[in-house]
Order: sequence, then C-alpha cells, then structure tokens
Amino acid sequence: MAITLRLSDADFEQRFAAFLLTKREVSADVDAVVRAIIARVRAEGDAALIEYTQKFEQADLKGLGMAVSQDDIAKAYDAADPQTIEALKFARDRIRSHHERQRPKDDRYTDAAGVELGSRWTAIEAVGLYVPGGTASYPSSVLMSAVPAKVAGVERIVMAVPAPYGIINPLVLVAADLTGISEIYRVGGAQAVAALAYGTETIKPVAKIVGPGNAYVAAAKRQVFGTVGIDMIAGPSEVLVVADGSNDPDWIAADLLAQAEHDVSAQSILITDDPVFGAAVGQAVERQLQSLPRGETAAASWRDFGAVILVPQIGAALPLVDRIAAEHVELAIDEPEAFLARMRNAGAVFLGRHTPEAIGDYVGGSNHVLPTARSARFSSGLSVLDFIKRTSILKLGPEQLRALAPAAIALAKAEGLDAHGRSVAIRLNM
Amino acid sequence: MAITLRLSDADFEQRFAAFLLTKREVSADVDAVVRAIIARVRAEGDAALIEYTQKFEQADLKGLGMAVSQDDIAKAYDAADPQTIEALKFARDRIRSHHERQRPKDDRYTDAAGVELGSRWTAIEAVGLYVPGGTASYPSSVLMSAVPAKVAGVERIVMAVPAPYGIINPLVLVAADLTGISEIYRVGGAQAVAALAYGTETIKPVAKIVGPGNAYVAAAKRQVFGTVGIDMIAGPSEVLVVADGSNDPDWIAADLLAQAEHDVSAQSILITDDPVFGAAVGQAVERQLQSLPRGETAAASWRDFGAVILVPQIGAALPLVDRIAAEHVELAIDEPEAFLARMRNAGAVFLGRHTPEAIGDYVGGSNHVLPTARSARFSSGLSVLDFIKRTSILKLGPEQLRALAPAAIALAKAEGLDAHGRSVAIRLNM
Repeated sequence: MAITLRLSDADFEQRFAAFLLTKREVSADVDAVVRAIIARVRAEGDAALIEYTQKFEQADLKGLGMAVSQDDIAKAYDAADPQTIEALKFARDRIRSHHERQRPKDDRYTDAAGVELGSRWTAIEAVGLYVPGGTASYPSSVLMSAVPAKVAGVERIVMAVPAPYGIINPLVLVAADLTGISEIYRVGGAQAVAALAYGTETIKPVAKIVGPGNAYVAAAKRQVFGTVGIDMIAGPSEVLVVADGSNDPDWIAADLLAQAEHDVSAQSILITDDPVFGAAVGQAVERQLQSLPRGETAAASWRDFGAVILVPQIGAALPLVDRIAAEHVELAIDEPEAFLARMRNAGAVFLGRHTPEAIGDYVGGSNHVLPTARSARFSSGLSVLDFIKRTSILKLGPEQLRALAPAAIALAKAEGLDAHGRSVAIRLNM
Repeated sequence: MAITLRLSDADFEQRFAAFLLTKREVSADVDAVVRAIIARVRAEGDAALIEYTQKFEQADLKGLGMAVSQDDIAKAYDAADPQTIEALKFARDRIRSHHERQRPKDDRYTDAAGVELGSRWTAIEAVGLYVPGGTASYPSSVLMSAVPAKVAGVERIVMAVPAPYGIINPLVLVAADLTGISEIYRVGGAQAVAALAYGTETIKPVAKIVGPGNAYVAAAKRQVFGTVGIDMIAGPSEVLVVADGSNDPDWIAADLLAQAEHDVSAQSILITDDPVFGAAVGQAVERQLQSLPRGETAAASWRDFGAVILVPQIGAALPLVDRIAAEHVELAIDEPEAFLARMRNAGAVFLGRHTPEAIGDYVGGSNHVLPTARSARFSSGLSVLDFIKRTSILKLGPEQLRALAPAAIALAKAEGLDAHGRSVAIRLNM
C-alpha cells in the first residue's frame, strides 16, 4: 500500500521533502568492470566483442554473424503478428509527423552595425541506438529514437541490440526496418557502447550514442561521454496523476498501475483534493492488481514508491507538481489548460480525462523518452534537437571590424590576452 | 615549431589520424578527492565551505562574508577602468541582441485525427554560473553565460567565483552586475559545485550548473550530473584557420597566436593550399612570439600542438575540416560562403579575411562557449537552449482515444504491458 501525505498535516513539508529524496534505484558500482571492458574492446576490437558476447549473452557471434542480415529481417517479419506490424506503422507515422515540426530553422541576418550573424543546424553524421535485450526490448522505443534521428537527417544510424542465447525480439527488428535502419549488430552491454564509441574492424564508430540500458550500459555511456555525445541517463519511469473527485477511480487506478508494472523501481503518485476519491483509487489499485499479469512487479512498485497526496484544493497541487518534476503528469481535472499554464516542470503533460499516459508511450506522436528522477527541472525529452548541432556564423568586413575593434581590444587588454587584441588591430593598422 | 602535414604524402592519413587522437590535456584523476569534498559539503554545509576556502584559497569567508555585497560591487566599479566598463556594456548589448533570436517558439496544434499536441518551453528556475578565479577569471565569460540565462528567463542566477587571498577580479563583479546577477558567492572548486547542487545554509540549491573550471570543478560537475543539469565539460581551446595565399601572413599568424596564448594545451592549426604562404605564416608566428607578453605559453602551445596542413587546393581541406571538427574555424579564402555550405562540423565559423576569431570572443554577439576537442561533431555552443527545457503536451477527447486505442492496445500487448492496454481500454468500455 502506497503512503498517504496530507498537505494540511504539520509534518507535511518534512515528509514530502524526504519523499522527494527517496532513491528508487540502487546504483551498482560497475565502473571498474566497465572500464576494463571498454579498454579491451579498444585494444582487441571484434575479438573482444565475440568473447564478451559468448560470456555475457551465451551467443556465438561467429556462427550468427555480428551484423543482422536482410534475411534475418525477413524472418522477423514472418515471425511478427501482422496486426502488430500495422500498429507499429501507425505509431511510426504519427511520431514522424510530430517530430517533423521540431526541426529549428537556420537563422542568418545582418545587424544594424552591418555585421552578419547566423546559426546553422546540421545533422550529426552517425548515431548509435542502443536497444536493450530480453524483456525490456521494446519495439516502441526503437521508433522513439530512430524516427527523430531520421527526421533530423542523420545519414548513418547504427543499432546495437544484444541477442541473449542468439535471440532478438523480432518486433525490434521490424521496428528498425520500418524506420529505415539497415545497420544492426547483435552486441549489447558496455562492449556494445565501446564498439560504437571507438569502432572495431566490423563496426565503424559513431559520433553520438542514445538509448536506455542496464547499469553497465549507463556506466559505459558516462565513460565514453566526450569521445562521443550521449543522451540522458534514464532512470526508472514515473507518473504523477492530478485528479479531482469527478474521475472514475478505476480509470485513475489503471493509469497508476500502467506505470507501476514497468519495474519495481517505477513510481506512481496521485494528487487529489478529494480524500474519499483518493481512498477509492487505492482500493481500485488493489482490486486491479489481482488480475494483472505483471501484478507482482506493480504491487512492489506501488507499495514501495507509490503515494497519494491530499490537498485542500487542486490549485494547491501546483507547487508540489513543480517540485516533483515528474516524467509524466496527467491532469484529470476540469480545467487542465489553466493548470498547465501555471506549472513549469514536467517531461510530458497529458490533458483531460481521456488522455491516459499509455497513449503517449505508443501512438500519441510525442516522444516517450523523457527526463526522469526530477530531471525535468533542467532537461527535456528526446527530440530532433538531440540529433543535430548548431554552428555559429560571424562575418565582418573592414568597416564592421573598425566599428567593433575598440571594445574588443579593450576587453582583450583587460583580460591580459594581448595576442587577441593584436589579431584585431593588425588588420586595421592600429 | 608546429608540425607540417602534406595531404599528398603517402603517410598522410596515418599521421593525420594520429594527430586527431593527440591528447592535449593530462586528465588528472581527482575523482576520489572530489567525492570526499562533495560528501562533506552535503553533510556540513557552510562550515565545510568555510574550511575548504581557507585551505585551498587562503581566504577567510567569516571575515569577508560568503556573499558578495552591494558595497563590494560598488568598490569593483570604482576599481575598474571606465573604458573597459563601456566595452563590457557594448559586448553585453551585442550578445543580448543575438541571443534574443534563439528562443524557440512554443508549438501547439491539432492534427488530422483531432489530437492536440504541443511543445512548450519554460525557463529553468535556478542556474549556477561557475566562474574560475585567478588568471582565467574572464569578465567576457561572465557575459557569455549570464546573458543567455537572462534572455531565457531564468529567475534566479547564482554566481560562484573563488577569491584566492580574498581577491576577485573587479571586472568579473562588474560584468555580473551589468547582466543583473545579484547573488554572488566567494566560493570555488568542487566545494562550490557541491554547494550549488545540494545547497547549504547560505546557498540555496540550483537546478543546473554551467561554466568552465579546473580539473576539480570538471570532476565535480560530472559527479553531480543527474542531481542537477550541467553544460558541456570544456577542454582547451582551439582554432583552425583555412587560408589561401592571398592573405597577409602576419594577420594569420596573429590569429594562430591569439589561440595559442590561452594555454599551453591550446591548439592552432593552419590549412593552406600555398606552401610558400604556409612557411611565411610559420616565420611570422616566430617573429610575433618575440613581442608577446604571453609568448612563453603561446610558444609551447604552437610547438606541441600547432600544425600546418598543406593541401593541393582549398576544396581538399573540406573533409579534414569536418574530421577536425574544431571549436573555431576561420575561412580566410575567396569564397567562404561556398566552403561553409559544404562543411558540417564546427563550433563557430568566422567568414572572410576581416573576421578574426577574437571578435567572436568578445563583441561579435555570438557565444564564445563552444564545443572543443572534436565535440562539434555532436554538440553545440552555449545558447538560450541551455537554459530552457521542453514539455510535451498531449490532449485527446473520447473520439480521438477511440481512434488511437487499437494500435496502442496492440503494442502494449506485444510488449507484455497489459496495464498499459487496460488504462486505454477501460475508458472505452472495451
């Protein structure tokens, strides 16, 4: 049973602050192991990948081939349910339409002084998409990282996905193919990250690596950061539902459980102004848990990290919502737009009573890779912006240089950087 | 003397690849020391800051005060040269005008299915600006991080700057005041980063920390990443000048030295299609070094990391420019626009013979905090985007939910996430 906090209680601030600091993940210290794996892949290339894959995934890359073939893709289509393939296409098209709106425009202009300035966006040349193996091998996540990369114009998209016992989820391969990824390797873990960052005989290096993974993958991404770019380090998923008493408790309970079923470290929070409704949702959660295939996982998540927060009126939820800064925020209230206008921190917001968060996971069109663990205070979900970079442009003629020179030379002098000043002055015979 | 590489030489590829991999910085392993400092600041707050500041900076925060006062600011103005203050204002205004164009527009629309989608940008609530002490305490860098934060709408901007022996560069305080920063603390190093990330009695925590620093500051930023956001980890500065034989060798030599004087680890590279011109630039560098106050630093940088790369024609420089992916690229050639259109990787590009890079350091208007060490392949310079974050918005009514439900439910089922499917189906009595 989740905890209940009441804003009106004298010790609320203390308990809420402690709740915010709750660590949901034990961060395994795998840095040394990962460092050794990366060093070996750098030194030995494919041979190290083959050996690690045999050891960690019981898969023989010599027999299977490191690269997934067109024949493997064809077999994946055969193995996949046609209705699911259609659903993936539907999702892909919706995700593509939404992300096409995200590409920023280049800017080029001449200012009052006659100086030409600009910002130009270009795609990253090569990107690696890491996809986990086993039960967390989600085709929807392939779409969520591959589609923005494609829309951004990334020329080479490389997918790395481990094949434990030689097996890859066929839907993952179908999703890759549906987004136009043709370079796929059966490698996983820290060794895959090392191969993508530094390259091997078979795998050419990329410039950025994105995608979720286990503690080894996360540590490897941190370690190669700088050599390549990385996306955020994603933590366990979370939802915050703000709901008034006019909701069906069963709907809201279903939403809380949709989050809780991900992982025992997932978190589901309800904020409501109606204590009777809050209690009814709690009962509905317990009831629905009985018939849920992943009920054990969801029950552990709800018990250990779930919370019901009672506020005197919905408006009082606002500062709490901003402090929680959740990955997903559902606003199942009468005037969700007004609430949204006043809030600040969330990865994604789902407005109204007919927008369950799960729609955003699959077919809403927006991205489901979102900032977790309160990082929505300072970061954003995955988008086209993660696959492009900006170059500043500056262009002066002699007249503009003359106009800007005195200030530049004064500042260079003040900072003790005489050669800076000289590079300006020398062009003006100053 | 810098090395010379010729594209026409048989071993060029090998030598160029080795050149790209040259490490310019010894990365000191200070992780354990930094971990201990952060832990103590978290546990003991102000008391730890006071002790570390006494130990590392020989400054007594109890006497000086941790916070810089309005009186300190007034004294800084008195100590500053009026012409330099005017130059800082000139730079600030130009930086502001340029960065005001960077704020992305919010997007809100209804698609063909009637689904409402959106992306909303909001400012990060509180940001910490780290400013180094001593000789690298540059007022121009204060402008470059504070102005975009202000333009973004960050409400609370906190500056941390160490005061070795109690002294802060007055121009740093003036620059802070000119950009409207009123919360400034005399703390530096890993202890300042810890205070900004976790808070102490005096310093309230922020959500993101930006700004350059020494190895301790860089390690601290990496360690607090996740708890707060951080900007890039900046390495030593670098310039790549692409110049034909029509340039004055002295101008180009001045540009190469403006970079080299920063730091013995800085890097200056010339690519030219004219070997005679290349040699003349080399001679001009040696000559100018004689009269440069920071000549020793610049000479070491040019000797250890400088390079002249000879290509048969300017167009042949293109793939090399993209592989080097320099922080600063000067195009001192006849048709810089055509070259720019074909290149991809650079932090900032300076077009034509009258745009020395130093203009961009101070008064061009664009930002001088740019990706170093080849990271322009995957990242961008500091901008308003670093001080805002995006929230996705999704809104469905019953009709839209009905239209999207089958695909969402199919995908949830395929991924074994039944509660996801249920949260959709339950709203439609499916």
